[in-house]
Amino acid sequence: MSLAALRDDLVPFLAPYLPSNDVSAKERPFITLTYAQSLDSRISAAPGVRTAISHSETKTMTHYLRYHHDGILIGSRTALADDPGLNCKFNDEFEKSPRPIILDLSQKWRFQGSQMYTLYKQGRGKPPIVVVRGAPTLRENDVDYLIFSQNERYIDFEILFSRLEAEFGLHSVMVEGGAFVINELLARGDLVDSLVITIGSVFLGKNGVEVSPANSLELKDIDWWNGTRDAIMCARFLNPKIV
Amino acid sequence: MSLAALRDDLVPFLAPYLPSNDVSAKERPFITLTYAQSLDSRISAAPGVRTAISHSETKTMTHYLRYHHDGILIGSRTALADDPGLNCKFNDEFEKSPRPIILDLSQKWRFQGSQMYTLYKQGRGKPPIVVVRGAPTLRENDVDYLIFSQNERYIDFEILFSRLEAEFGLHSVMVEGGAFVINELLARGDLVDSLVITIGSVFLGKNGVEVSPANSLELKDIDWWNGTRDAIMCARFLNPKIV
Repeated sequence: MSLAALRDDLVPFLAPYLPSNDVSAKERPFITLTYAQSLDSRISAAPGVRTAISHSETKTMTHYLRYHHDGILIGSRTALADDPGLNCKFNDEFEKSPRPIILDLSQKWRFQGSQMYTLYKQGRGKPPIVVVRGAPTLRENDVDYLIFSQNERYIDFEILFSRLEAEFGLHSVMVEGGAFVINELLARGDLVDSLVITIGSVFLGKNGVEVSPANSLELKDIDWWNGTRDAIMCARFLNPKIV
Repeated sequence: MSLAALRDDLVPFLAPYLPSNDVSAKERPFITLTYAQSLDSRISAAPGVRTAISHSETKTMTHYLRYHHDGILIGSRTALADDPGLNCKFNDEFEKSPRPIILDLSQKWRFQGSQMYTLYKQGRGKPPIVVVRGAPTLRENDVDYLIFSQNERYIDFEILFSRLEAEFGLHSVMVEGGAFVINELLARGDLVDSLVITIGSVFLGKNGVEVSPANSLELKDIDWWNGTRDAIMCARFLNPKIV
């Protein structure tokens, strides 16, 4: 499947929100939180169901964002449900694919047999970093493991991101989902440098998987882009802690 | 409080979605469903809490829509929580105010003492039509009652709208909230002629009052407008029943 062309006006629209090169003062990567939701803030029609929300032109935008990031993080539930490729297809520049990072504390996901594995073997994607708690029960070839202690019941994303920078040299990471990871990151707005939300003009309904943080959050530097059917909102969090 | 000026580009943007004069073939009013929501599809931060979501420029749009409608319907929970004026302040053309319609099956709302009453007495708003089940326990001056039978456990909006046309001559009604009424109307997309949703760039969080229909819904004739902080989506439902 080849991508639709990137709409010209997306380039200047996204530019202020892309990772900046000035990471010298930072101990963690530039973090972009990005996802596609329905009008009623659902990212899928039901748990475990991959749901098309966005139009082809905003799908291309996702690959343009991947082109600009070193890593791309998703939760293992999403990895298992969607079996995503997570590579960069923008202009077929596969070598610009970000490193997939799978948050897999329960160690249920496997690289072998996944679409990521196929793309990697074809030279069209990078091998993943798998974030686990405790020693990996199975060490797969070509996979890097980022290991948290068994004692760490909850993963502190600040530590996770710092380790992605320190141990793997990732200067920019985009976080794509699923709902658990998104809601956690919304709650840690101090860690998010850019927010890029695609809103598809559809209702997925009450049984869908919802994105909504525990508390209210205000944004700044807000800009909107209109597509054929979707809108995209870019913003930053109003009161991020200084890291 | 006077309104901000209407942004020029809202006029052509909204024009295709305004009530049409051709109601000859219809037995019910033209229905516009319109509300302001957060990114996470909340219309208020908590039940009974009036929450500012939209920017002044989209508030002006609401009064422009009121200018173009004969009636404006809300549920009594919203009437009690927000005490809204429901008049038209667009260009101070109060005589173009729609008739407030309060869906008050439990007969808890009172006109006297409300902001609507004050505005009416000042000649800046119209008196309401109150929709009740069973004979009104208290008949207030200047209020018209639309009475459903005690036997009708659920109000059929199709019948309600037809009676607003037949008994009160309302050719167009905008429905503004709250969540119960909005979710019911989304479920009856066949009754809705235009959908106008303002999306404010804020998260209200899990404790907010949510809008999400029981089932997924597809839209057509989608158009987006971008404001300073908000976006507005106009659309129609994909498969409305022919009435």
